[in-house]
Amino acid sequence: MSFDPQDGRIQGAVPRSTADKAAALVPTDAVIPVSGFGGVGYPKSVTRSIAADDREMELTVISGGGVGAEVDDALVEAGKLARRYPFQTRRKVRDAINEGTVAFHDRHISRVGDEVRLGDFGEPDVAIVEAVAVGEDWLIPSTSIGNTPAFVAAADALIVEVNHAQPIELAQVHDVYTRALPPDRAPIPLGGPIDRIGTPKIEFPSEKLIAVVETDRSDTPYEFRDPTAVDLQIAANLGSFLEAELERNPMLKERVHLQFGVGSMGNALMGALDEIEFGDRDVIYFGEVFQDGLLDSIDSGLLTGASATSLALSLDGQERLFADIDRYATDVVLRPADISNNAALIERFGVVGINSAVEVDLYGNANATHINGTHVINGIGGGGDFNRNCRLGIIALPSTAAGGDISKIVPMTPHVDHTEHDLSVVVTEHGVADLRGLSPRERAEEMIAVADPQYREQLERYRSRAKKSSGNIMHDFATTHRWETE
Amino acid sequence: MSFDPQDGRIQGAVPRSTADKAAALVPTDAVIPVSGFGGVGYPKSVTRSIAADDREMELTVISGGGVGAEVDDALVEAGKLARRYPFQTRRKVRDAINEGTVAFHDRHISRVGDEVRLGDFGEPDVAIVEAVAVGEDWLIPSTSIGNTPAFVAAADALIVEVNHAQPIELAQVHDVYTRALPPDRAPIPLGGPIDRIGTPKIEFPSEKLIAVVETDRSDTPYEFRDPTAVDLQIAANLGSFLEAELERNPMLKERVHLQFGVGSMGNALMGALDEIEFGDRDVIYFGEVFQDGLLDSIDSGLLTGASATSLALSLDGQERLFADIDRYATDVVLRPADISNNAALIERFGVVGINSAVEVDLYGNANATHINGTHVINGIGGGGDFNRNCRLGIIALPSTAAGGDISKIVPMTPHVDHTEHDLSVVVTEHGVADLRGLSPRERAEEMIAVADPQYREQLERYRSRAKKSSGNIMHDFATTHRWETE
Repeated sequence: MSFDPQDGRIQGAVPRSTADKAAALVPTDAVIPVSGFGGVGYPKSVTRSIAADDREMELTVISGGGVGAEVDDALVEAGKLARRYPFQTRRKVRDAINEGTVAFHDRHISRVGDEVRLGDFGEPDVAIVEAVAVGEDWLIPSTSIGNTPAFVAAADALIVEVNHAQPIELAQVHDVYTRALPPDRAPIPLGGPIDRIGTPKIEFPSEKLIAVVETDRSDTPYEFRDPTAVDLQIAANLGSFLEAELERNPMLKERVHLQFGVGSMGNALMGALDEIEFGDRDVIYFGEVFQDGLLDSIDSGLLTGASATSLALSLDGQERLFADIDRYATDVVLRPADISNNAALIERFGVVGINSAVEVDLYGNANATHINGTHVINGIGGGGDFNRNCRLGIIALPSTAAGGDISKIVPMTPHVDHTEHDLSVVVTEHGVADLRGLSPRERAEEMIAVADPQYREQLERYRSRAKKSSGNIMHDFATTHRWETE
Repeated sequence: MSFDPQDGRIQGAVPRSTADKAAALVPTDAVIPVSGFGGVGYPKSVTRSIAADDREMELTVISGGGVGAEVDDALVEAGKLARRYPFQTRRKVRDAINEGTVAFHDRHISRVGDEVRLGDFGEPDVAIVEAVAVGEDWLIPSTSIGNTPAFVAAADALIVEVNHAQPIELAQVHDVYTRALPPDRAPIPLGGPIDRIGTPKIEFPSEKLIAVVETDRSDTPYEFRDPTAVDLQIAANLGSFLEAELERNPMLKERVHLQFGVGSMGNALMGALDEIEFGDRDVIYFGEVFQDGLLDSIDSGLLTGASATSLALSLDGQERLFADIDRYATDVVLRPADISNNAALIERFGVVGINSAVEVDLYGNANATHINGTHVINGIGGGGDFNRNCRLGIIALPSTAAGGDISKIVPMTPHVDHTEHDLSVVVTEHGVADLRGLSPRERAEEMIAVADPQYREQLERYRSRAKKSSGNIMHDFATTHRWETE
């Protein structure tokens, strides 16, 4: 399944179409899996035409990860989005979800491909996928892969947007490896994090392809804020912890496989990698997103390579990567999300995962998705894939939010995405809580020590009140959700 | 690594000892990994001698799963147990944990082997392991394997109890496959759930073996209660759900791989397997415990085979199995717990997992470990391994406890072991809540429909009050933990 870009972006007898005509092929109650992950590689043209379509529609949209305005803003504004899975990053759709006008559920990214193929979200009608090239029975993804291979396999029909704004050289970074459904699923034969076992192409039966539309519109990816002083102090604490762990942990003797979560905090931590003394160890990134912060480490030679499912770069980062794509493609590989986030690979490679959270409680449970336990932000994404399966899982977060007005270390998170059984280490700007081997009572002590000093006394008072419950874990349920004022 | 029982239970020049002399070799602050899982296969002699030892001791005990009185009762009574990981089933140790005199933390069973090898619970001093046979650099486990291979690999020293009360034919059921530590860990080459890839022996460097003690004392395993009318109704609801799913789900077209959780509920559901119409599908058990309920299905030919890490049978069940061990050994295989509970295998085999919980909330979070959110029962065990990695994960539980005085369907569990992102289906005696693809608001409706009728009105009232929070998930935090009286 080799690919020669000289042969052009559109090869063979494909059903060329316009965005409007392609949109007209979409049923009014369609279940639509779309490409896109990390705010890049999503369809930008047919989805806008669907939004502009005269028909009343109640659509279900399933993405790999975050997609742009041309999907989530457009369909919400048009009142056509009824259901949305499993991750979103745009304010419009988030507000609709929290108001209850769009039904949403967030699932672990590594599972979503299977869940779609098994019909958990209804039978997928038509997948809409952005590509850098397409043929009669194959396509080559653009800036992300996500769960697109599973979506293409599951959907009855396929619409491809060939985007001339995405460099065709992206074909060089893709390693699409597809798996049979259980129970006849073989082990993933990946020897190391940046080995290649697939091809640049997603294949499909040619009869699925009902429209090929040409576009020329850039991604509207994330914007990262500059690292704050708190970010940098967290990075410094993380660095000290990792350096001590490198000395001690037999898993990290010769090679270190790292993963960082999506977003500005993750990006800031990636950017601080060069400050850490890794000795002569190979350092390789095995995560779900390749963000701006990693470009410097690739350039400096610190990172030998990176595996992800999305080039979740800012526009600046995209420019930098695209300008030198031939060179980066030797060290960077994109995979389907059920490979990039695969439990077995994360475990086998001994990935050290660093993810963030909204808040963490005294016993090591983390809320990563719902503000106040009620209002969803983006969804769990791959956080659970890494927190659960990393043999060294770290949550890094500032100790406060809202300029210090809210403590992110709390007695009990009002929503749990990562349990006390998964978390091992919590890092804030005030230090490192190494929870490994500690009982819940001992964990509470460590957690209070990394809280903001202005909240430690209230947290201690909560602990005193909680003692009356006795138990392995102690709580005062009467004040759990109003502990700051007690 | 073949084994000929004709050569005897003790082979070669091993350091024979008495239990008391072996106990004297244990440091007073030792970290002691012990064999045992599902209440069977644990050391019964040296641990009692340690308890009777004159020295003051502060011991850390790590087991694969549940062990018997000779470990947990004896050491707690002697005041020598300071720390305990990751699962326990005896009242004495549970009370000590909940009073805070023994430090405890429950971790996912599949991870514990690695966590011990990586030093997360301190450096293991001496492993104490029950065996049916031992040589200078190998042992053959008895009625369970659990995380014993990892414990033996991690500990500085090894004491082996050769138990003449355990049939030597148990060697035939073991398939010990050991893995390198990450990051150089290969895929597990298991083609199917009951294939064999290992040997009956756990190997070790001969210098580790510091004592071999002979014993002749039976396991004191679980006792299962008889199935109640509610158990049988849950089994019937589960059966109807599974039969519909067999028709629909592409994963279940030709073969079904099942897992049931530990305990009387799991045992009752296993016992009701013969009532389900599986057509001409192969049905194979891939779980962590082989319990009494499976013996009938093996005998009837419904089950083609079973893979587990423990023969967690009652005394009656042990007698039945031991009397016919040659026959059962062709269909039953015991593996290390990091294989029996392995995320990749559970996923690859498409295991349908049926586990229980203390309570489940309206949004699909489950508490499986802490009564009132504070008092630990046994620990999470393998529940998280299966709930997370099964592509069809089911929680089966009665809708009430305490003779109807407590609803097990609640607005918000006061402890979360399995999150809304993991759960798919909940079964009670009142029906099946199929949560797949549902938003939290929709999940709440389904969950109320399977609650006990006497609690549905209170749950609906909670839902009404919760609406004022708005959000993707709605809660009324003021009454979350006193919803029944509002």
